Amino acid sequence: MNAVVKVRPELGAVYQQVDIPRIAPDEVLVKVRATSICGTDVHIYKWDPWSQGRIGEKALPQTLGHEVAGEVVEIGPEVKRISVGDYISAETHIPHPGDLQALLCQMHIGERMRILGVDCNGAFAEYFAVPEVVCWINDKSIPPEFASIQEPLGNATYAVLAEDNDVAGKSMVLIGDGPISLLAVGVARVCGVTNIFLVGKYDFNMEIGRKMGADHLLYANKDDVDRVAYIKDHTGGYGADLVLDMAGSPQALDEGFKFLRKGGRFTAFGISSETPAAIDYNNGIVFKGSQVHGISGRKMFDTWYRVRNFLSSGRLDIAPVITHMFTLEEYETGFNEMIKRPRASAKVVLFPDPAELEAAKKRRGI
Amino acid sequence: MNAVVKVRPELGAVYQQVDIPRIAPDEVLVKVRATSICGTDVHIYKWDPWSQGRIGEKALPQTLGHEVAGEVVEIGPEVKRISVGDYISAETHIPHPGDLQALLCQMHIGERMRILGVDCNGAFAEYFAVPEVVCWINDKSIPPEFASIQEPLGNATYAVLAEDNDVAGKSMVLIGDGPISLLAVGVARVCGVTNIFLVGKYDFNMEIGRKMGADHLLYANKDDVDRVAYIKDHTGGYGADLVLDMAGSPQALDEGFKFLRKGGRFTAFGISSETPAAIDYNNGIVFKGSQVHGISGRKMFDTWYRVRNFLSSGRLDIAPVITHMFTLEEYETGFNEMIKRPRASAKVVLFPDPAELEAAKKRRGI
Amino acid sequence: MNAVVKVRPELGAVYQQVDIPRIAPDEVLVKVRATSICGTDVHIYKWDPWSQGRIGEKALPQTLGHEVAGEVVEIGPEVKRISVGDYISAETHIPHPGDLQALLCQMHIGERMRILGVDCNGAFAEYFAVPEVVCWINDKSIPPEFASIQEPLGNATYAVLAEDNDVAGKSMVLIGDGPISLLAVGVARVCGVTNIFLVGKYDFNMEIGRKMGADHLLYANKDDVDRVAYIKDHTGGYGADLVLDMAGSPQALDEGFKFLRKGGRFTAFGISSETPAAIDYNNGIVFKGSQVHGISGRKMFDTWYRVRNFLSSGRLDIAPVITHMFTLEEYETGFNEMIKRPRASAKVVLFPDPAELEAAKKRRGI
Amino acid sequence: MNAVVKVRPELGAVYQQVDIPRIAPDEVLVKVRATSICGTDVHIYKWDPWSQGRIGEKALPQTLGHEVAGEVVEIGPEVKRISVGDYISAETHIPHPGDLQALLCQMHIGERMRILGVDCNGAFAEYFAVPEVVCWINDKSIPPEFASIQEPLGNATYAVLAEDNDVAGKSMVLIGDGPISLLAVGVARVCGVTNIFLVGKYDFNMEIGRKMGADHLLYANKDDVDRVAYIKDHTGGYGADLVLDMAGSPQALDEGFKFLRKGGRFTAFGISSETPAAIDYNNGIVFKGSQVHGISGRKMFDTWYRVRNFLSSGRLDIAPVITHMFTLEEYETGFNEMIKRPRASAKVVLFPDPAELEAAKKRRGI
Repeated sequence: MNAVVKVRPELGAVYQQVDIPRIAPDEVLVKVRATSICGTDVHIYKWDPWSQGRIGEKALPQTLGHEVAGEVVEIGPEVKRISVGDYISAETHIPHPGDLQALLCQMHIGERMRILGVDCNGAFAEYFAVPEVVCWINDKSIPPEFASIQEPLGNATYAVLAEDNDVAGKSMVLIGDGPISLLAVGVARVCGVTNIFLVGKYDFNMEIGRKMGADHLLYANKDDVDRVAYIKDHTGGYGADLVLDMAGSPQALDEGFKFLRKGGRFTAFGISSETPAAIDYNNGIVFKGSQVHGISGRKMFDTWYRVRNFLSSGRLDIAPVITHMFTLEEYETGFNEMIKRPRASAKVVLFPDPAELEAAKKRRGI
Repeated sequence: MNAVVKVRPELGAVYQQVDIPRIAPDEVLVKVRATSICGTDVHIYKWDPWSQGRIGEKALPQTLGHEVAGEVVEIGPEVKRISVGDYISAETHIPHPGDLQALLCQMHIGERMRILGVDCNGAFAEYFAVPEVVCWINDKSIPPEFASIQEPLGNATYAVLAEDNDVAGKSMVLIGDGPISLLAVGVARVCGVTNIFLVGKYDFNMEIGRKMGADHLLYANKDDVDRVAYIKDHTGGYGADLVLDMAGSPQALDEGFKFLRKGGRFTAFGISSETPAAIDYNNGIVFKGSQVHGISGRKMFDTWYRVRNFLSSGRLDIAPVITHMFTLEEYETGFNEMIKRPRASAKVVLFPDPAELEAAKKRRGI
Repeated sequence: MNAVVKVRPELGAVYQQVDIPRIAPDEVLVKVRATSICGTDVHIYKWDPWSQGRIGEKALPQTLGHEVAGEVVEIGPEVKRISVGDYISAETHIPHPGDLQALLCQMHIGERMRILGVDCNGAFAEYFAVPEVVCWINDKSIPPEFASIQEPLGNATYAVLAEDNDVAGKSMVLIGDGPISLLAVGVARVCGVTNIFLVGKYDFNMEIGRKMGADHLLYANKDDVDRVAYIKDHTGGYGADLVLDMAGSPQALDEGFKFLRKGGRFTAFGISSETPAAIDYNNGIVFKGSQVHGISGRKMFDTWYRVRNFLSSGRLDIAPVITHMFTLEEYETGFNEMIKRPRASAKVVLFPDPAELEAAKKRRGI
Repeated sequence: MNAVVKVRPELGAVYQQVDIPRIAPDEVLVKVRATSICGTDVHIYKWDPWSQGRIGEKALPQTLGHEVAGEVVEIGPEVKRISVGDYISAETHIPHPGDLQALLCQMHIGERMRILGVDCNGAFAEYFAVPEVVCWINDKSIPPEFASIQEPLGNATYAVLAEDNDVAGKSMVLIGDGPISLLAVGVARVCGVTNIFLVGKYDFNMEIGRKMGADHLLYANKDDVDRVAYIKDHTGGYGADLVLDMAGSPQALDEGFKFLRKGGRFTAFGISSETPAAIDYNNGIVFKGSQVHGISGRKMFDTWYRVRNFLSSGRLDIAPVITHMFTLEEYETGFNEMIKRPRASAKVVLFPDPAELEAAKKRRGI
């Protein structure tokens, strides 16, 4: 079969013939219908210091990718709830069943958890093997380009709802204009957030944010507006009930806590570019009586359940976030769209079968 | 001033001249811009057994009404957060500050709580006096016919969100097609409920339910459809995540728990027509591992905050639920619309000042 | 090996030789160190109508029992987190991995869940086979007679903490004086419930309740005290913050909601002896603004984690609840102690190996 | 009357005659029975930079103190729930009723909130005036030296339980050995925390921590033990479920997040000595999926209700934390005990009436 494989410890990847994976007894084999490029894939593609440390040269060659939708074509003998013919997507966090977290309904953050496409071969291929435990059965009504994106949409959903699911009738600032932020704007809108501020940098993406439902667009890289004052002016002088950071820059972490009202909730999703981070702990957390929820991955499968319902009900339209679609063989073009700045892309979807690409284009009227 | 007063212990009420109320030191005087008829008002109007026991002949004469929006024209010397000129609505549950519940953020259900328009004069008048503690400052952008309805909309909001606010991406059955149910459909829709089943009886109201966002209409008084089977068929065979009963009939309480999936949440808002009620406690609650949330009133002021945001943001359009508007003097026509069956009304709004009625009609393009 | 087996559809069971079970690939074989008698075992032992309907004659012969502690002596090839030598207990609810509930962290109430010792052979034997998914690794410091009782102690813990875990500094009424109620008194005490009322019938058990930490003993079968008035007198006139019913009688369900203060939480654990049950739905739930939490089983494995910590820390001493210990062969004496009225037993523990019984007696100074 | 007054902008305070305060219409006058010294009082006593900025020279003279228990001897005409003769303590955070937070059950962190003894005269006096809104009626069984300490005990209770009240059966690390930490150890113990690690510096206080219920004492200022490794060793390798920081030092904030297991809860109570603080945001919050709860003050009056119940039930004995008792006139000795290092005090209680001191000593067998 064909796959996009990281072969050498350097920039890039190779589209090449590899064997169809053999599945373990607790795995299923999936024929990929659509697969999308995540920021993590870009890190590996670039072979940046994080990739070098996290994956390492010895693991190569390794197939990239983990955002996926496809059809199950074979199941291992231990598989219990997935059948051949199921239309599935995959949770990226493969839990270890013995972790305390896995036993306490937090399997998405278990100590010994492995990551699909990072700790093992991924889904940028015609077929991929995946443990049953992370399979999620998709609603048949969801087209593969949407179903593939459920994984980042799950990030967005978990980040918006966080641990308390309490957002309806409240105001929210979202910091960052990458694809997950744009999806989060849509989720916030669907969940009844009544005043949505999007803080970003790039016109192309901000415009998508507006389409997804942002009420206010604030540029992080322009000083024409005092962002803190603006948000207070539009929230009765108090600041936003909810702040969701997806940027992680020093500016975001500094401003983010200022955007928040006393007694509000701050969702920490973006990875800080500095370690340790400089946080106004006293004014932002202690005196403010705020709650900070660290978000990693998606709740298994509480988040997936909601995501499926958002999409299958038609309540949430994520079409504006899919900015590019290519065949899998055209992966380089896709990666280049993701990498270039100023940013002019959100989600890029790849299709191993050109006919699937054509069908997707037809659905979208392209 | 003119007011609609319950004068005698019999059907009806009288539009008559009464003194403008004198306010206590902790009260404010409000010039009424709009006031709407609640089911409780209908009970008192009819002088049914509940009214006879709850209010009693000795309390008469008493002005009806408690759903209201108006402008503060005078404040008592103890008043601290409300000013002359504020545009307010009133929470109906007047708490006693010494109740344990009032000290534990449950002031809406305190032991010694009084009810506006039941335990004291109400708002079907040109002016009414109301304790500061229940005043809620409205957003100026909300027209008075909407602002008046925030009280039942608050019931709907509290009933939909209940104590856990966890509804986004879930399915919900709403039982009952009275005005609060119809508002609740709209709230559920805004809050991200992804599959909304409305169970009701009257075509007129069911049609409003559809406009408010119900995905499925099921008639409680027709046997063409097996309602339990229908709901299971549309929820993967499990039943709905959430059930909200606003009917209280034996059929509603029996079916309601059958509609619910194992581990779901049942909101008890409707008042049971039978005491005690026959509940399938074992299958509906114990074995089902369900949660039942009893809902009375609105959270003060968590619910009001969300309601204001739903309306001022434009996310929630409650116009379809306002089916009739009259001057206050035309109150009898309003009550008759509320009473007649088959039901062909939802909310009826009354305006003391005919000019306000005209302005409202103009806004609605009537 | 020896086992206590339900052989015929009539009162009683037989201690007989049976084959050591063969384990499935996802199961482990456990050498039983201690096993205790549950009320469910008594139902099956009596072969009452519930057993006849739930298990049925065709399933016989079947080994009884599901409360257990033992050592793993063999593991199937699919087993991942359990090892030979592990000292384990077993959760009784065997989930089906494909149930929606199992995917949403509610696997203890899945639709297709099976019950150990009801839907398959149980643990009243020298060895028993159990799926890995329900195995819980015990702390080695917990003696087997305590470890065996973790399953009902888990019921007690889940029922006391319910879904919100919010009990510290609050008052609680527990209705029923069976073993799980007595354990629940101990759990409530450990968790900071500050005023514990136990409502029961039998002097023997009430005395254990006092030892476990009840502050007030109220007899359900005596009319010398007005129980509702007594509880209000000792809760500032309001009623208890929390009520936990473990009796299920009409009197319990009627009084239980009267014991509860407005805005309190009612835990529904006891199975109603009448279907449907007569519930004062309006005054007990709707107007009271109460929450009712239906409790079945134990959270997997949140509840087990807490139970282990309660025991291994020594915070909770459950010794007073273990009233009888016998060898497995003496099972009839054990069942008779459970069945006789007036009740004069709580938990009865059986040991397949007489040496384990001797060791337990020595630990307890008998 | 006599009072301890900050007269001049320099170290110290003066015991002098001042007028008995006149109460406002919404205030009550309290005859002080006991009053205790808070760290905030020490800041003001020292006239450190925080006091200079927060209070300022213009506000002087001002009576110190806010931890108090006493009897109401006069009430203003607007007072509704407090009566002459009530035995009360006072919440320190005086809310403004118009703050959004005050309307959303977060009145302890309102924007315009004032602090008793900081923004107005305090309780180190024979009499003090206090707004009714912050009065809490004590249980008569609680002696005044305990009742006075309910305010810091409330800090401890809120910090232990935080916003989710979910601590029973879990492990907790408490960082800091000041008085509130020592009280928090007792609260954690009463609430069912099953493994309590106290990290402190001073033998005197650590010994009190042991008496209050700490299972493990770890010295922050000794390197004989690897504290992170020790805590992991005693929590199955994962780290503690709960971490409560009351120190705020760089070391505490660095180690605190390392002590915490993935998916755990971190309570931020201690004020960081550095602004901004250096936080390992990625590993401590984002990847760890942790929740951080900022805690300021006490929930009004959820926290007070629990505190009263802990004390009146006898579940919690705070006697070990009261290390010194003096007459109010001996305030200087009290302050010196609080200031000296190495620390050899926890709570210091002052009694305006020497007879109350004698009675307290008798109760404590001194």
